[in-house]
Amino acid sequence: MLTRTSAQTLTDQLAERFAERIRNRLMAPGARLPSVRECARQQGVSPHTVVAAYDQLLAQGLVEARRQRGFYVRNDAAAPAARAPAAVRSVAEPAQPVATVLARAPADASTLIRGMFHRQSAKPQPGMGVLPPDWLESTFMPTAVRKVTSVKALQEFSLQYGDPAGDAGLRSSLVQKLAGIQLEVAPSQIVTTVGATHALDIVSRTLLRAGDPVMVEEPGWAVEFARLEALGMRVLPVPRLADGPDLAVMQRYCEAYQPKLFVSVSVLHNPTGYSLSPAGAHRVLQLANQHDFHIVEDDTYSHLAPEHATRLSTLDGLQRTIYVSGFAKILAPNWRIGFLAASPSLVERLLETKLLATLTTPALFERALAWCIDQGQLRRHVERIRVRLEGARSRAVKLALAHGCTLASEPAGLFGWIETGADTDALTQRLLDEGYLIAPGSLFHARRQPTTLMRINFATTQDATFWKVFCRVRDGL
Amino acid sequence: MLTRTSAQTLTDQLAERFAERIRNRLMAPGARLPSVRECARQQGVSPHTVVAAYDQLLAQGLVEARRQRGFYVRNDAAAPAARAPAAVRSVAEPAQPVATVLARAPADASTLIRGMFHRQSAKPQPGMGVLPPDWLESTFMPTAVRKVTSVKALQEFSLQYGDPAGDAGLRSSLVQKLAGIQLEVAPSQIVTTVGATHALDIVSRTLLRAGDPVMVEEPGWAVEFARLEALGMRVLPVPRLADGPDLAVMQRYCEAYQPKLFVSVSVLHNPTGYSLSPAGAHRVLQLANQHDFHIVEDDTYSHLAPEHATRLSTLDGLQRTIYVSGFAKILAPNWRIGFLAASPSLVERLLETKLLATLTTPALFERALAWCIDQGQLRRHVERIRVRLEGARSRAVKLALAHGCTLASEPAGLFGWIETGADTDALTQRLLDEGYLIAPGSLFHARRQPTTLMRINFATTQDATFWKVFCRVRDGL
Repeated sequence: MLTRTSAQTLTDQLAERFAERIRNRLMAPGARLPSVRECARQQGVSPHTVVAAYDQLLAQGLVEARRQRGFYVRNDAAAPAARAPAAVRSVAEPAQPVATVLARAPADASTLIRGMFHRQSAKPQPGMGVLPPDWLESTFMPTAVRKVTSVKALQEFSLQYGDPAGDAGLRSSLVQKLAGIQLEVAPSQIVTTVGATHALDIVSRTLLRAGDPVMVEEPGWAVEFARLEALGMRVLPVPRLADGPDLAVMQRYCEAYQPKLFVSVSVLHNPTGYSLSPAGAHRVLQLANQHDFHIVEDDTYSHLAPEHATRLSTLDGLQRTIYVSGFAKILAPNWRIGFLAASPSLVERLLETKLLATLTTPALFERALAWCIDQGQLRRHVERIRVRLEGARSRAVKLALAHGCTLASEPAGLFGWIETGADTDALTQRLLDEGYLIAPGSLFHARRQPTTLMRINFATTQDATFWKVFCRVRDGL
Repeated sequence: MLTRTSAQTLTDQLAERFAERIRNRLMAPGARLPSVRECARQQGVSPHTVVAAYDQLLAQGLVEARRQRGFYVRNDAAAPAARAPAAVRSVAEPAQPVATVLARAPADASTLIRGMFHRQSAKPQPGMGVLPPDWLESTFMPTAVRKVTSVKALQEFSLQYGDPAGDAGLRSSLVQKLAGIQLEVAPSQIVTTVGATHALDIVSRTLLRAGDPVMVEEPGWAVEFARLEALGMRVLPVPRLADGPDLAVMQRYCEAYQPKLFVSVSVLHNPTGYSLSPAGAHRVLQLANQHDFHIVEDDTYSHLAPEHATRLSTLDGLQRTIYVSGFAKILAPNWRIGFLAASPSLVERLLETKLLATLTTPALFERALAWCIDQGQLRRHVERIRVRLEGARSRAVKLALAHGCTLASEPAGLFGWIETGADTDALTQRLLDEGYLIAPGSLFHARRQPTTLMRINFATTQDATFWKVFCRVRDGL
């Protein structure tokens, strides 16, 4: 809220709040600022105050005026050079949530993702993609790190490049772990990566050339869409249904474009929470055989799903599938450990891509993770998290329903896919004013478009405080 | 050497040694095995023994026979599936250097690189790309890691993704460090990466599209050539001369192809040890301005060079240049810390590429490295290493000259570029029999071709043992 008792003028407060949001990419390049009249009404200030604030933003190079159309965030606004000179910024208070902004969807898909890496406030964030830090705290992770950082161990693995495929001990532990989902692989079929994202990147760089058509699920994960587009691929969105991808659409894509790859979060799909049915899996694999494409199965949410859930990789025995998973959603997002498993002939090509892009990955956390797996610590931690998440999910669902939302899919796993009845891009900007970052539905579409859906994290939406604010903001739109 | 007193037959020994070399990619897919007669003569065994050994390799799926042309390593030979069944392998002794092989250059440039990640023997390896582990051992690195792995610190940074640009503390330390080479940047202009290789990868993915022409130095680093080719770029090799790249050739490329990027190791160039002259630097930058291309300056060997060495990035102030460096050559190869520095507007695009490919990088070693820099430990370590390397360089050069080699360039930095008078691809295979891995000149050419040059690591070629073996093997070719 703007405050008249502040040491700063209302104009300075308003300008600084917009500036912060632009710098943190929560208002994207190309986004339109509310009209002067609109902004003045929302903030309860005079149009003169708004004009003066917009003039400051203009002077700082953060926005541009377009004749007859209003003010827009400049394309290079988030670049440090475009920031205000220190002398101008020094009068401003530290960052606070910005005043109401009714901008449309950000111009590029990774914008809100970038925003998600900035801490908004101390409040639990409904748009978060991972479990909150206090859920992940443990005594066994520090113990694991201590085990592998004795002077001798540290010197031994630090002072040479290490194995390009990743720490041998971790790859053996992962073999045991994959046996739990009936996926039989040798350690030599596993390559460790900088998180599951890097594994997906390696797979697409290895199997695709610029211009190749690739099928993705929609709704789906914005980083995956943006990465494939940055690599120059032709992204073909396949609607994700409750039991699997829409096979009729896939069939038509296959006939028209001969796609080389299908990217699928088969179990606890992000954002819907859907899991593939056995029959759906069988039919997807049949289609892959018939039309000769590969499937990369992103099992990022593996630990939150039952072991008996159907995985394409298990059915297929890694003939056409590449299995990808990681530990950011269950252990420690910053450890950045993911991995892939593939057929013996394909894994050599994937390893080559890893080698050319990063040579090797650091062994420390790989060894610490191996210890966590081998000692059964990870398994016990997973059990605790699942029980806790089940409670949170049940409370969050009740609250969502009680506050006028409905469920777009059966609740499962970490995320809820929620029908709000309001434009969630507009909601995103308004809730930022209150210190909450949500994940609007447009973020999960290959071609961003306004929707009334949003993804919630069950772990951060299980108390009534957020929902009360949510209701007030939605009803005030 | 094959031994008649071994528990294994000569046939088994011979087969197993070939098999090991093929699996470790020291004989590449497509390489030809020596003829039966040739192999029998070299090993002092009967042709029958060689035929039996080759039959074992055939049965194991590692080689194929081509009518009238002999035996060749299969394209999928290094894949685990092609490995011998356990029952067959169990009769073999642990890996030993393989018998003489006169195969030609490996089919793909990254093959020998892959080989370099396997420990050949306990002997110092002339082909190594980094300082030996015993040179890098220190007490300050374990201390640094202990500082950042207190339970509190570990929980604090492990349990969230972290800043996509990298640890803020390290970026501030790097700003101070870059001031030492007169490169003035803000922390926001720096992005940390998984080693310098990852930084180079991010730059080429951001600035280039498949099919784009890119200029590289030749001789140069094979991983760079292979990566650009894997990304589908058109690689234009520019001869590297003592004072810089061949400007006449660059000029012709610019006129004919309008390349978008020039990749340069300006200081202590790999493999020649050349450093760019101030006049050469100025002219390269003029050309870049005239023909509108970017330059990525790979300053990987920074710590081994004088601070006053001419850097393109310093002259240019990061207008058209992107500065890349890392710590694998001076501290700890497995920590995998590199970084890039670029202009404010470009760094945003580079950060976007990092985010899409790996989200963030692990903070632990980044924080430990910041401590090493801030406490002056890195600086003192660098001074010690430089003194030690100077001694090694002087001894290695004397030995090379005394053993019939000449210097292809003035010795400087970590590597010597040596004229041997013999085909160094053939030498590579013969020296492997003796437990030595060398880096043949062909590895440093964009289109691999046999040469009589080799790169030596001064730290591992400073005693006479290697050079005596080298002489005997070369004279026996």
